Amino acid sequence: MASVIPASNSSMRSDRNTYVGKRFVHVKNPYLDLMDEDILYHLDLGTKTHNLPAMFGDVKFVCVGGSPNRMKAFALFMHKELGLEEAEEDIKDICAGTDRYCMYKTGPVLAISHGMGIPSISIMLHELIKLLHHARCCDVTIIRIGTSGGIGIAPGTVVITDIAVDSFFKPRFEQVILDNIVTRSTELDKELSEELFNCSKEIPNFPTLIGHTMCTYDFYEGQGRLDGALCSFSREKKLDYLKRAYKAGVRNIEMESTVFAAMCGLCGLKAKSTLIKPQTF
Amino acid sequence: MASVIPASNSSMRSDRNTYVGKRFVHVKNPYLDLMDEDILYHLDLGTKTHNLPAMFGDVKFVCVGGSPNRMKAFALFMHKELGLEEAEEDIKDICAGTDRYCMYKTGPVLAISHGMGIPSISIMLHELIKLLHHARCCDVTIIRIGTSGGIGIAPGTVVITDIAVDSFFKPRFEQVILDNIVTRSTELDKELSEELFNCSKEIPNFPTLIGHTMCTYDFYEGQGRLDGALCSFSREKKLDYLKRAYKAGVRNIEMESTVFAAMCGLCGLKAKSTLIKPQTF
Repeated sequence: MASVIPASNSSMRSDRNTYVGKRFVHVKNPYLDLMDEDILYHLDLGTKTHNLPAMFGDVKFVCVGGSPNRMKAFALFMHKELGLEEAEEDIKDICAGTDRYCMYKTGPVLAISHGMGIPSISIMLHELIKLLHHARCCDVTIIRIGTSGGIGIAPGTVVITDIAVDSFFKPRFEQVILDNIVTRSTELDKELSEELFNCSKEIPNFPTLIGHTMCTYDFYEGQGRLDGALCSFSREKKLDYLKRAYKAGVRNIEMESTVFAAMCGLCGLKAKSTLIKPQTF
Repeated sequence: MASVIPASNSSMRSDRNTYVGKRFVHVKNPYLDLMDEDILYHLDLGTKTHNLPAMFGDVKFVCVGGSPNRMKAFALFMHKELGLEEAEEDIKDICAGTDRYCMYKTGPVLAISHGMGIPSISIMLHELIKLLHHARCCDVTIIRIGTSGGIGIAPGTVVITDIAVDSFFKPRFEQVILDNIVTRSTELDKELSEELFNCSKEIPNFPTLIGHTMCTYDFYEGQGRLDGALCSFSREKKLDYLKRAYKAGVRNIEMESTVFAAMCGLCGLKAKSTLIKPQTF
């Protein structure tokens, strides 16, 4: 894995966000540069134990998804698509020292699992963003890929998220910082959405649309499922809720998009979008 | 794995919560008994594909924790402690068909991983509670075991949670159901807390206390960490928050206890408590 940015290049200060027209991934934490060592606990990586610029400096695309097995399959698929020389067997889990997340790298593509739900992806994103920052990556595109529940669309349709909304159909992520609630924007990169949509047109029988994605904290009661251990609403109430969601522009439901949009937006990941294939609802 | 309750016993209707003085695990969902089949998607189990009463009917203790590896280690430890005849190699991941959660059974003890955060444990608990209900388990004790950040206590101290509180130190879990917010109680079983506390006294050098556990949605900004990708508060604000938490009775912080307490309480799991070993803060 070659690094495009030499670790010794002192002109590339890690606190700069742009350099020679390039857009670096940045952190918004004044304490980070004062730290002697940064341990990325849940990724089993660190600034003293690993040469992060050498390992990750050439990353241009980060693809994240819930399931570790699927992210491995995705990395192997990308490896074939890119026609890289490295043997398939050499694509190993970089985070093998922990069972929290899995990470695979093939050429400029990094694939990482994030588990299920906002808190789980949030821990991974904090450490991934710091990783890309320490590795001095630039012009990084991040895409979340996952299954979801479709609303009013045919199963198998791919939804490219333009904006992530919460359970109340609001385009916001409410982040609790200590005991304060801070509201963050959940808008995703328009240019990338259109680029991905244009790609989909080139593939036959690949139904794709751009729409809002709703992000909930709960899979059963939060998404109107009638088969959880707890269910206190009627079938009619469920259908009314889903109809109101559709009317508000929601085309699918999942559990990570609001915090994904909020954090990537704040940390200058050049372009970002979620690409979600609804399966059942 | 022998079942203590024969699957064919028609007098043991699954919708009854008590039978001959026993306390069954119950679901609060009127639709469930009308379903022809219940697929526990994320556990890779189902009522038609598996004989759940035969597989799980004798379960008396369920221990849950975030990490799959740790839950396997715990199951192997329990296996030795119980002195069971079954070979260690036979303790296999029951959910091997999915990479969402891991599950191990040894005698009457079931050990399951739940990933990180409220949404992740919530999906597992919905399906676990349905599993125990379908398997006609009775008198089940559920214990969450995990690491956490201690507040004002020595590292390594075990905190037995009496009540789980949210980021605002309130003993509540706010469940979003469709677009309604419902507040649920997060009190845990007092008798079990005391029983566990008494057990700890029998072990030398095993510092243990009973206290409140705070549950947050975020590991970095939510728990006052200064080393995330985002940090907008001062060291003083962080310390002030932790001091206020301590004053409110909080002795440790983690990310699952409120929904764990709320769901187990609603579904009649006879006794429940979280047992948490703080490591660092």
